[in-house]
Parts: sequence; C-alpha cells; structure tokens
Amino acid sequence: MAFTTTNNNNAILFLVPLCLLVFLITPSFAQLPFLQRRPQQPRGQQWQHDCDIQQLQAAEPTCRLRAEAGVIEVWESNSEQFRCAGVAAVRYVIEPKGLLLPSYTNAPYVTYVTQGRGIQGVIVPGCPETFESPLGSATSRVGQRDQHQRVFRVQEGDVIGSPAGVAQWTYNDGDAPIVSVTLLDLSNPHNQLDLNFRSFYLAGNPQGGQERGPKEVAGKNIFNGFDDDLLADAYNVDTETVRSMKGENDERGSIIRVERDLEILSPEWDDIEEERTRRLNGLEQTLCSLSFKQNIDQPSLADVFTKHGGRINTINGRKLPLLQYLQLSVERGVLYKNALMTPHWNINAHSIIYITRGTGRIQVARENGRLVFDDRVQEGQLLVVPQNFVVVKKAEQEGLEWVSFKTNDNAMISPLAGKLSAIRGMPDEVLMSSYDMSREEVRRLKYGREELSMFSPRTRSF
Amino acid sequence: MAFTTTNNNNAILFLVPLCLLVFLITPSFAQLPFLQRRPQQPRGQQWQHDCDIQQLQAAEPTCRLRAEAGVIEVWESNSEQFRCAGVAAVRYVIEPKGLLLPSYTNAPYVTYVTQGRGIQGVIVPGCPETFESPLGSATSRVGQRDQHQRVFRVQEGDVIGSPAGVAQWTYNDGDAPIVSVTLLDLSNPHNQLDLNFRSFYLAGNPQGGQERGPKEVAGKNIFNGFDDDLLADAYNVDTETVRSMKGENDERGSIIRVERDLEILSPEWDDIEEERTRRLNGLEQTLCSLSFKQNIDQPSLADVFTKHGGRINTINGRKLPLLQYLQLSVERGVLYKNALMTPHWNINAHSIIYITRGTGRIQVARENGRLVFDDRVQEGQLLVVPQNFVVVKKAEQEGLEWVSFKTNDNAMISPLAGKLSAIRGMPDEVLMSSYDMSREEVRRLKYGREELSMFSPRTRSF
Amino acid sequence: MAFTTTNNNNAILFLVPLCLLVFLITPSFAQLPFLQRRPQQPRGQQWQHDCDIQQLQAAEPTCRLRAEAGVIEVWESNSEQFRCAGVAAVRYVIEPKGLLLPSYTNAPYVTYVTQGRGIQGVIVPGCPETFESPLGSATSRVGQRDQHQRVFRVQEGDVIGSPAGVAQWTYNDGDAPIVSVTLLDLSNPHNQLDLNFRSFYLAGNPQGGQERGPKEVAGKNIFNGFDDDLLADAYNVDTETVRSMKGENDERGSIIRVERDLEILSPEWDDIEEERTRRLNGLEQTLCSLSFKQNIDQPSLADVFTKHGGRINTINGRKLPLLQYLQLSVERGVLYKNALMTPHWNINAHSIIYITRGTGRIQVARENGRLVFDDRVQEGQLLVVPQNFVVVKKAEQEGLEWVSFKTNDNAMISPLAGKLSAIRGMPDEVLMSSYDMSREEVRRLKYGREELSMFSPRTRSF
Repeated sequence: MAFTTTNNNNAILFLVPLCLLVFLITPSFAQLPFLQRRPQQPRGQQWQHDCDIQQLQAAEPTCRLRAEAGVIEVWESNSEQFRCAGVAAVRYVIEPKGLLLPSYTNAPYVTYVTQGRGIQGVIVPGCPETFESPLGSATSRVGQRDQHQRVFRVQEGDVIGSPAGVAQWTYNDGDAPIVSVTLLDLSNPHNQLDLNFRSFYLAGNPQGGQERGPKEVAGKNIFNGFDDDLLADAYNVDTETVRSMKGENDERGSIIRVERDLEILSPEWDDIEEERTRRLNGLEQTLCSLSFKQNIDQPSLADVFTKHGGRINTINGRKLPLLQYLQLSVERGVLYKNALMTPHWNINAHSIIYITRGTGRIQVARENGRLVFDDRVQEGQLLVVPQNFVVVKKAEQEGLEWVSFKTNDNAMISPLAGKLSAIRGMPDEVLMSSYDMSREEVRRLKYGREELSMFSPRTRSF
Repeated sequence: MAFTTTNNNNAILFLVPLCLLVFLITPSFAQLPFLQRRPQQPRGQQWQHDCDIQQLQAAEPTCRLRAEAGVIEVWESNSEQFRCAGVAAVRYVIEPKGLLLPSYTNAPYVTYVTQGRGIQGVIVPGCPETFESPLGSATSRVGQRDQHQRVFRVQEGDVIGSPAGVAQWTYNDGDAPIVSVTLLDLSNPHNQLDLNFRSFYLAGNPQGGQERGPKEVAGKNIFNGFDDDLLADAYNVDTETVRSMKGENDERGSIIRVERDLEILSPEWDDIEEERTRRLNGLEQTLCSLSFKQNIDQPSLADVFTKHGGRINTINGRKLPLLQYLQLSVERGVLYKNALMTPHWNINAHSIIYITRGTGRIQVARENGRLVFDDRVQEGQLLVVPQNFVVVKKAEQEGLEWVSFKTNDNAMISPLAGKLSAIRGMPDEVLMSSYDMSREEVRRLKYGREELSMFSPRTRSF
Repeated sequence: MAFTTTNNNNAILFLVPLCLLVFLITPSFAQLPFLQRRPQQPRGQQWQHDCDIQQLQAAEPTCRLRAEAGVIEVWESNSEQFRCAGVAAVRYVIEPKGLLLPSYTNAPYVTYVTQGRGIQGVIVPGCPETFESPLGSATSRVGQRDQHQRVFRVQEGDVIGSPAGVAQWTYNDGDAPIVSVTLLDLSNPHNQLDLNFRSFYLAGNPQGGQERGPKEVAGKNIFNGFDDDLLADAYNVDTETVRSMKGENDERGSIIRVERDLEILSPEWDDIEEERTRRLNGLEQTLCSLSFKQNIDQPSLADVFTKHGGRINTINGRKLPLLQYLQLSVERGVLYKNALMTPHWNINAHSIIYITRGTGRIQVARENGRLVFDDRVQEGQLLVVPQNFVVVKKAEQEGLEWVSFKTNDNAMISPLAGKLSAIRGMPDEVLMSSYDMSREEVRRLKYGREELSMFSPRTRSF
C-alpha cells in the first residue's frame, strides 16, 4: 500500500493562550458590560436580541488551532459585532499537500481564497458520482476505477459558496499555502437551530491532541460516539475499520498532510468539469448542477472602475445563482494610493469587511451620528459594518484592498457622494433649507464628485 | 328536539399530578441548570435563543387532560429539545362518538393518525359552503338543509396539515378510538408572536372542571370574556344564547360525547368531496381547494423499499401542496426485525420522531462527536433530532415503526452509508488519507452496503 | 440669495417630562414586573422572545419632541405590546412650510396621512433623476435647471410605504398641518439588526437643542461624527461646507421651516409623475418605477359596505405592489353611529389599530378566553392586537374610524359572525353538540346577521 501517513506524534498542535483566557474570564464579567453600557435599557429588551452597538473592532482572529498541515483561526463569535450581525468567521491556512478534512456546518457560508490553489470536493446526497479518478498504482486486487462526486479547482480570488449541511473537503496541490477566509451566516433561515457555529467533521480528530480549542471547530468527528457494532453493521465492515473511522488517537487535527500526491488530479480536469456540468441538463435547477464558485478578482469584469480611484467587483445571486439560495453576496474592493470610497450605507445587508492587502482608514457612524469605528485598518483584519450604518474608507500610501461579505444575495449600497449620491437625488431647495446653504454651495455638494464610488485623490485642495 | 347532551357532571376530568409538580418546581430551579451546563457561556449568548444541547430525551407526553370523550396529552414545550427546535407536540385520543371541539392554533401543524377513523371539518374564511348535510329528523320548523364548509374523512395513516389561525374540528364516527399525534411548528414564520403554543377554542370549556391543565390546551373558549350584550348584538341573538356559547359551566372539556350520530355522514361522501373539489377550478390556488390530507401508510407508494430492511414513505410539498405553504413535511419509516436505517443527518430541517410501533435503539451525535442520545425507544415516545445532528436507528425483534415530522417542506437527509452515502461521494484517496486506511478498506467502506437507506440485518459477521 | 433660514435660537424645543421619567424609572423595575407576571415561567422561555400578554393598552404617544416647524411623537417601543408585535409607531405633525428632513430607517414602514397635503421625495440609489424643478429666481451664476429623483403629492387618506434604508423627505406646501402616523415593522426580515427603531437623518440636527429626546428619533445627523477632511475629500468641497452639513449648532430639530415656497412645486406636476412612471418600462420590476402611495379613503372603492353599518377599505400587496415587498398591508375602517364590526381574529398578521376619529368600545381576548383589553377608545390612540387574538369593535354616538396596519401583505381576518362567519362554516350538529343548543338556536346563531362584517345597530332587542 502506497499511502502511509500514520498518526504523527510530532505534529505541533498548540492553542494560543489567548483563547483560553477569553474563555475563562468571560463568565464572571458576563453581566457587567451589558449593564454598564445600557443603563436605561427598557424592560422588554432583555428578551430580545439587542444591539446597541457603541464600538466596533477591526480584529484579527482571536483563536488559532494548529493542525499537522495548516492552521485554523477563528474570530470568536461572542464579540458583540458578530453576535449582532449573526455571523462567524474563520481563516484557514492549508499548507502544500495539506487536506482540510471533509466537514459540513450548520450555516451557509462563502469563502474567499486570498492566496494559493487547490482542489475542492462537494458532496450533495443524490448527485451523480460522475467523476473518475485514475487508478492508484498500488491498488492491488481492487481493479475498479474510483468514482466520486464533483471536484473543482479553487484558486486565489475565487468565491466559493456552500449551503448548510453540505459536506466539502479541500486539498492543496500547489506549491504555496492556500489562505482563505470564510464567512458563516448563522442567522440565515437555512440554519434552524441557534447562532452558534458548528462544524461537523466526517473524519479525523479535529481537536487533535489538545484538550480544548475554539469550540467552533474542535471536537471529535461525528462517528466518534457511536457504538462500534452499530457502525460496523451500518457499513458491513469489521469493528477495526470502524475504529479507524473514529480517529480516536489521531493527532493530526483537521488539516492533515497527504504523503504522496492525491491522484485525483489530472491536468485537463477543469474543462471536464465544465463539460460534465453542461450535460446534466435535467437537473439544471438542483444543487447538483449549480456552480459553487466564481472568481471575483478579474479587473476586466469590474462593476466600477475609476482611473486613479480603484475598482469594485461584485458577485451576487444573478452572477452565481447558488448565492441566491444562500442569500449572500460578495464585494471585492481595490482602492489605489490615497483614493477613497464614497461614504455610503448598506441598504439591505450587513457588510463584513476583510482587509486583504494594504492599509487605510475607516470610519463608521451609527444612527445618532456617533462614530462607532474610527481607526487604521490593515491586512488580516475583519470589521463588521451593520446594516444602515454609514461607512467611509480611505487608502493610505500602499492602497487598500478588501473583500466584503454581505448578508443579502442582492446587497445594495446607497452612496452619499458621487454620481449616484443620495444628495443628488434631492432638489436643490430641499438641500438649501436642510443644510442652510446657498444654491452654489448645494450645487458643489451635488456635483463636486463625478465619479461613481471610487474617488481619486483630490488634486486641488481647500 | 332530539339532541340532548347536557353538562355531564359525572365526566371524569382529572389532571395527572405530574403536570402540577412540573409547574411548581420549575421556577426555583429556573436559573440553575442553565448556569451549570454552560459555564463558559460567552456574554453575547445571553441575548440569544441558545441551544447547547447535551442530552435529548425520548419522552412520553408529560401532561394529560381528560375530557368527557377523550384525552389530550401534551409534551410540555419547556423542555430544551422542544424549545430549541421551536416545536410543540400533542397527542389526542378521541373516543367513539367523541367530538374534538372546533379550535385554531397560533402555529401551523401536521397531524398523523396512528389509529381509528373519523371526519374532520376545516373552516377557511371566504371558502364556499358547498356541503349539505341531511336534515335532522327532529328539525321542527327549520325546514332548510344545513350548509357548511368542507368536511373530509380521516383515518389511520393520514397526514393532515393546517395553517396557523384556521379552525378545525374532528368527530369520531368509528368503533375504536382515534389516536393522533400533532406537531406544531411554533418557529414557523406564519406564527408572528412567540414560541408559546396557543389553542383558541370556538366552543366548550377546554379546561373543564379543572383549576389548571397544561396551559397549551386549557382555558375557556374565546367568547368567554366578551360582554354578553356585545356578543348578543354581534349575533343578533338573546343573551341566553350567548351564555350558552360561553360554556361557562360546561364540565365536558374539549372532547365531548355526541349522544346520537352526527348526521353529516353519508356513505358516498368521500367521493363527493373529491368531485366538489375538482369543480372549484377558479380557486385552484387558494386554501379553499387545496387538499388538507394524504395517506402515508401505503407500502405500494413507498419511496424506499428494501426486502429485509424496511420502507420509507414521505409526504412533502410536492405531493401535498398545502405542505409547501406550511413549510413542513413528514416521513414514515418501517424497519423490519433487526434491520437498521443508515446513519444520516438532516440537511435542512429538524426531525421530530414519534415511535408508532415496536422497539429499537437510537443514537444521536452532535457536532463534536458526543452522543446526545443513546437509548432504547418504544411506542408512544417522541424524540427531537436537531438539524445536522447524526442519527442511527436499529430495530429490535418486533421491528420499529415511526413517523418523523420535519420542519421543511422539502426536507433532505444526507446518508452516511449505503448507495447514496456521503462516503461514496469522496475519492478513495481522500478517504485513505482521512481515515488512514488502505484502498481495500476504503472500498469496503464505500461499497459494503448496496441498499439505499434501510439495511437488512447482516448475514456474515466480523 | 433668497433663502435665509438660519439657526433660530428662539425655536421652542422641549421634551415632555414624561419621557425622561420613563427613562429614569425603568431600569430599577426592569426585572420586577417580568418576574411577578410570569411566576411559573418554564426555564427555556428565558432565552426567548416571550409574550404572555395580560393587558394591552390603547395609548397616546408617550414621548414628544418639538421641532421648529412641527412635532414628532413616539410610542416608546419598550411597552410589551410593541415589543411582542415587533413594531414601533410615530406621529408626525408638519406645519405649513415645514420640511421633515431627509432620513431613512432600519425597518420598512407604512404611513397613513390623517390630515393635510404636501409633497414627498424618495431617493433610491440608481433610479434616474428624471424630475426637473424650475430654476430659482435668485440662482445667480448657476445656470442649470435642477434635476432630482421622484417627488409625489401626498394628502389626507394616503397610505405611503417605504423599504428599510431608503431615504425620504416631506414638505408641507398646504395651509394646514400635515398629521400622519407611521408604523414601522421592526421584526420584518428586511431589518437584519435588532428590534430597536433607528432613524438616520441625512441633514439637520434631529435632537435640536435638547440633551435627550426619544432615542428613536433624536441624535445628530449621520455626517456629524465623520472627520471634516475626509468628508471634504469625499465631496470635493471645503471643510466649511462640511461643517454646514453636520448641522452642529442647528437648533431647529428635524422639522424645519422653509422661509419661502420650495420651487419644486408646479400645479400639473402630479400628472407628470404618472406619465414619467409609465415611460420607465424597462425598470417595471424595480423600486424606481413602483408607486409608493395609494389613497385608502375613497368610499366608492370600499371592499365592504353596509348601509347603516360602515365600510372597510384595504390596500394590500395586490393593490399596491410595493406592499408585497414590504410584507405589510393597511385596513381603513369606518363604523357608523352605534354600529359594530364582527368579532374576528387576524389569521396571519398582527393588527395595529390607530383611531382616527370618534369613540367606541373595543374588547380583545386571548387564547384562554380572558380579555386582555376592554376599554373605550378615542381619536389619537393606538392599540396592538396580536395575531389570532379575538377582537370586537363597537362605535358610540359619533361613530368610530380607524386605520389598521397589518404585518402581512395579504392579511386575512376570520369573522365569527355575519355572512363569512366561522360559525356558518360548521354543520348544525357540530354546533348543537358544541354549544349544547337546539337546532333552532344554532340556526339563529348562524343566520342572525346577514351582513358581511360591518353590522348596523340592532332594531329589535332581546
């Protein structure tokens, strides 16, 4: 047998102390900040999911779990901004030859691949097993070609969606780590249980050798607790095989190293997928034939482009129909050096911004005009901007790039400046009275920026 | 006047002491188990509906209320599993000549009739009164035939749906009791108030002579509190009639005995319904013409059948369009002696399993692999399996039969073994690495069971 | 420049002391009534939005904020009935020449204009700026006609809808105050954050000179907190203009007085709107071409009319497609002297009743037959009737008029008396047994009222 990875006791599996700390100190202070910050909370609101947000944070992941061939980093969802938006976020780093074990979650999600390339498999019950992998060289007596469900290539700039309860796995067949950020929409109607993020692993031992990890992604695999005989019966195998499935003493965690190349890869294989997909005409409407991914990084397909400003690409339910089902969409923003994005609010969605490159300044205001965020942001940080809150972004010297996950498959923004500005939508005289300005001043306000939403740095100054 | 049922003071109306006990002890312990079981609860979660389920129960109803001609048994919805799934459940036993009084609820529901036969009436405002009952023999001066809305036959194996706020009544015209189980989907968007189950009775005195009963089904009828003169005015009748409507001193409870046969019954009457329904072409899309029931017990219509394994029948929104509106569906499972159903998870629904016959063993695992249920189950028990949790069922000597109510009109399961197994959906090499197995072992895992989901007992053993 | 309104320090901006009082006393009693009223609350319910309503109130607004040219009155949403229905309500009084500043809210809403006439503008990003206002006489060097988005006339009897996050403004060009009542559907899926009502003002200083006001509508405008340079950059204007936008020292509040007539008005202008709307064929499905308003006060379009009883007009999603999107509808009821509306329940919606004229008596019962409301109501009061609760209305000497906001775009009631009565939908014999009545009594109950739902006063009495 060619495949020889065994339990690797040298795999470094450690938990950044911060995580435990957070877990330990929260209970005792549980009531305190709540009471301090809402001293005049009316009675009824204690029954409610209540979000009197005073301060947002641009945060790096708060918890990390190292596995044999990668790292899983979690933004712990007990922070107010995640709770209020009903979302959770995870960053995966999969090293070359790393395999993120098959798992499903209790909420639909979208993933953005910030770097690397690999292959991903998705398993939808009832979809045809139309893929055939080449036969392993060491297959001994098993003479049949391997059949399985759809696999597809994923690479930098791809947006990949997934319904709740649908299992996926990812393998890094490239030379560099795959880094991706996943946004889970816990408050989506497809998740019927609660706002806790749950990963269900079909294999391995996600928590590895650790006692604790971020509860969202650690634990045993789903077979672990079942009776050996019952499982042996269900699979018609011996109990030794069943014990292997349970991965009891597997120390590799949820991203494992595959010792030789997975032989599912063939060079022409991405085209084949396209072709096969087209053949499944009768199932056009089902998950079996829907595409799960689309690239959002192609400048030529930008929705908005301004010469010295930057560009915006979006992928919504019309471009990737799976997102219609998931009720999610994604915006990719690139601001050039010192450029700025129009102040705007999100009409019908929360926007969860992940900074992919560069630095910049972001300000966010709530309904009473108070800023709830005013800070410099940088690569690797994530910021939740609640629905209807007003946001401004300005790049610094190196520019600013981000991906925004939006909790609506047709997310709309309302710009406050530029060509589609809400200010332009109003008659001069309404603005003159409202702002106590002259007509000239109002006209400058309406027409001072002719760009759509990505504004180049000002040449003249006041 | 031939119809003579009066208040029957001898009707045995008693409340099993357990109910009161539960009501009395809960307040004092209200906070305790909550705190004990979630010691590291992050702050935000106290605002939320939070379901860190550690243990499920297969339970008989916890409360029962006897009425003159039947019994109402309630699974009290304060248990964690009901709260988390947002459902409530009730079992009705209607004795021969018993009439379950007209009522509506605040949540859509589906009922499964486990035994008996009777007739049911449904009242949708604006639907035509196209049914005519034969004239009572003692009708004196009232010379007109009785007109009313649709009635239909219900019998063992029927699944009957109902929207929130639509009144129904049921009469037992058979020789044996009607026993039925009703699952109410309180978290359904059609219920806009809260997760408490509320029954609104149009007649009688549901709580009978008792001070207390399960709050879900006891109380007075909806007319009880209104001003006599106001009601007399509304109906243009005298206040004495109004006092009869209020049923103030009615001791019969919500299932009453009808002393002579209800004359709405005529032998050819089921066909008539069919015909009339077809005539209502213009209203095809409305509740007036939709069928409210379908039988789920016909082996010839099984969706899955395995010779020594068993069968599964399902009724979903495609088969009974009313269920599309209700966002509910039903699965009927029959496992033969020692057979077993594939381990699986529910992708997009909670599954509420009611055991209708036999005994068996069920195991349920949550996301971290821990079992939250591992017990023998038997007829009359109800078990909530949350969305995405993994479940295995195995029959004992007498076989195991159940009906599963699902909180999605197109509920899907993802089998983990058998022909549509998620394991089969993955390439050999992914499984070999994940489980640290040889290709032969993996192939046995994938192809050890060729059946769909109901597995016959193993002949060979390991 | 002709337009000269400046900060008016004499504007009377005061807060009725009641508001502050409410804010101050709530915290200390926050837990008390909750515990007292639900002594036997099962454990699970503390996680839930729980609505064991014992008493409803017909209330005037609890808080008012005076602005320069009008008053904003708020029904504070901490009351149980508002919390449970997930709604908030506001009454606006806009004096002649008053301008309600442009703002958007976090929830969709419907407004009913009880008196007056004015013009309203709506700003949807991406909709064409197809309106041109005449050039102001004092426009100096700015030689271009003003272009802006859609404006439309609003007047007494109009129902105006608005999506969440879409900005609107209203100007009173009439001779009498505009009085309107707005119902916000906070629990609508279009609002993703929480059940707090939030107004986002694009201009002015909503809280005026006050330290505090009803938090729902007071505060600064959305530009207030942003960095001056950042905004100047965004609009390409100087920072002085930006400071004017922020309205820091504006004491006029959110309804300001416009000193001369707004010149957007032209007499033929309502027809133009119609015509332009028709031209936008390609956008038929978008918010750009949808009508935002419809009049509900025309007796000739009544859905129900009874000679001495009264009439009902409804506007639902079929009549005003925008309401389909908002999932809201409106009922207008007029009961003549001493007439009465059929007892009924709302099948699929909460009903929020605002009394527009007259006096009457209303009774409301919950599921156990207990009255949760039994009182005289009068003009200006608002009452929440939860889904499925039973309600009776009877006018006094001067008649009773109301507008009911319903939380479903196709709200349905189930009448308990009259031509479509649920009682009529049942066979005689079911009623005879249920109410222990003779056939004659039952027939009187079924046919005592032949009217549809608005019943004339009785001539004969019992």
